Amino acid sequence: MSSIYAGVDLGGTTAKLGLFKKDGTLIKKWEIPTRKEDGGKHVCPDIAQSIKANMEEAGIAFSELSGAGIGVPGPIRPDGYVEVIVNIGIHDWNPVKELSELLGGVPVKGGNDANVAALGEMWQGGGKGYQDVVAVTLGTGVGGGVIVGGHIVAGSKGMGGEIGHLVMDWNWTEPETCNCGNRGCLEQIASATGIARMAKRFMQESNKASALRDMEDVTAKDVFDAAKKGDALAEEVADYCMMYLARALSYISQVVDPEVFVIGGGVSKAGQYLLDLLRKHYDPLIVLTKEKARLALATLGNDAGIYGSAKLIIDEE
Amino acid sequence: MSSIYAGVDLGGTTAKLGLFKKDGTLIKKWEIPTRKEDGGKHVCPDIAQSIKANMEEAGIAFSELSGAGIGVPGPIRPDGYVEVIVNIGIHDWNPVKELSELLGGVPVKGGNDANVAALGEMWQGGGKGYQDVVAVTLGTGVGGGVIVGGHIVAGSKGMGGEIGHLVMDWNWTEPETCNCGNRGCLEQIASATGIARMAKRFMQESNKASALRDMEDVTAKDVFDAAKKGDALAEEVADYCMMYLARALSYISQVVDPEVFVIGGGVSKAGQYLLDLLRKHYDPLIVLTKEKARLALATLGNDAGIYGSAKLIIDEE
Repeated sequence: MSSIYAGVDLGGTTAKLGLFKKDGTLIKKWEIPTRKEDGGKHVCPDIAQSIKANMEEAGIAFSELSGAGIGVPGPIRPDGYVEVIVNIGIHDWNPVKELSELLGGVPVKGGNDANVAALGEMWQGGGKGYQDVVAVTLGTGVGGGVIVGGHIVAGSKGMGGEIGHLVMDWNWTEPETCNCGNRGCLEQIASATGIARMAKRFMQESNKASALRDMEDVTAKDVFDAAKKGDALAEEVADYCMMYLARALSYISQVVDPEVFVIGGGVSKAGQYLLDLLRKHYDPLIVLTKEKARLALATLGNDAGIYGSAKLIIDEE
Repeated sequence: MSSIYAGVDLGGTTAKLGLFKKDGTLIKKWEIPTRKEDGGKHVCPDIAQSIKANMEEAGIAFSELSGAGIGVPGPIRPDGYVEVIVNIGIHDWNPVKELSELLGGVPVKGGNDANVAALGEMWQGGGKGYQDVVAVTLGTGVGGGVIVGGHIVAGSKGMGGEIGHLVMDWNWTEPETCNCGNRGCLEQIASATGIARMAKRFMQESNKASALRDMEDVTAKDVFDAAKKGDALAEEVADYCMMYLARALSYISQVVDPEVFVIGGGVSKAGQYLLDLLRKHYDPLIVLTKEKARLALATLGNDAGIYGSAKLIIDEE
């Protein structure tokens, strides 16, 4: 009886891999480098070879493999076709078809990495027990994944859950252009980079004393650490940035109305303090329902992708 | 062989009803008054009786009825339970269960009226041929319905598609409070009422000559009619209101990424002129994909609800 599922989280530098049981038990996880040379043609063979080798090492017969899921850092069509993955430099590629062939024809399913990570958090992470989940990742950028009824909302052009580029500042006071080309995106305010930028701006615009002023290069972590210690300027910055995030969450709630928002990424290490700020700003914006969405922290960290990609293929059965 | 489906669109004043074939052919439609007396206890019996009578009148045996769908003006749980319908004054009610019993046990399915209308437009209206549709109704208020993969996204607390209450003006310059209790909601700007309010505000704030100034009570229709004739002030108002709607659509696209937005309600009678304004403001906001969502007009008018409720039950089979 075959009963093992492989989850692959393909990144520009490494691919993370995991072997799972259907009930979500992680049997084994590991990483391999992503070889970009030769137009990325080694990527799928390396993954397949590594899955086989690690199954053998774990004493599991290859015939036990029921399928594999793969999350890729870019848009992917339902049939697995990828136009381009910029981080890897690969074009006109179908990792789903290729991986299936290399794995002896087992079913393979692909998804966008942010969406797949959201699915992982729903399955075995901060959103466990829920079916309507929106995952928000506060890292270098702001990513998102929308899950409705247990399934990823990828969107007709792969733009589902691209909440980092919700324009939040329509006064056009933001002088810098976002990576996306717009100005005033959520990502420019609430990502790790955004929070650090805002801290610098708040310092320039006031004379308020702050521990942040003594630091060479203020990070989002510095801002939250200082805020937790009662540093007034840091509190203002954290409050400001989370107010904007709460506004974005209020939009999301009035479009898809999730049961829970799962907040992940480096910034989410600020923990309950961050959730409390979000709660303070979010609740008053939701006037149509008495019960407000839960706010939870992501718990799978960098493993969300392998969990989610395994879940992708388990759901296909 | 049973092959007829009833669609019911329950409103506070009347219930609209229709008999459909599975392929979307409307066989017959009619209306009955919604009797609110005695705590609404006549509502379901009236509907069931009327379906039976109209089937007989159309020469269709009652045994042909395969099921019914009902859209209600308020939140309804997946099992059909309704806490309250304010417009009818009915509490603790399960129209789905009741209607099924009254119709000889055929399957019945319920939905919120705005969501059901969106499903109708997807099935046989402005969104025909698409599976990922967001319907926007610009009437007294601004309503919405989100369809992903052909299915309604009702939301965990029934708040899915409640886009009228997206707060669009964070500068809190809006002096009036929205019906929902917030200020600066999309509904206060882009509904028929909102457009008329904005027209009055623009007239107060400038001395610009305008045909609107000669009118006793300016309506949204007056604004669009004058704008189409080149009235500069009316053009400004229409442009302003549709700019805000376009911003809201850009949010929706970056959450669920529909193939098409279907614009309905009284204001949508402004037609292509309105769509062109929306397009002008929407496209520059979507920088993540080259291909932009389609913008289409709703085509079913007040029949969207009966189409959608019939589709609800057809999809259950």
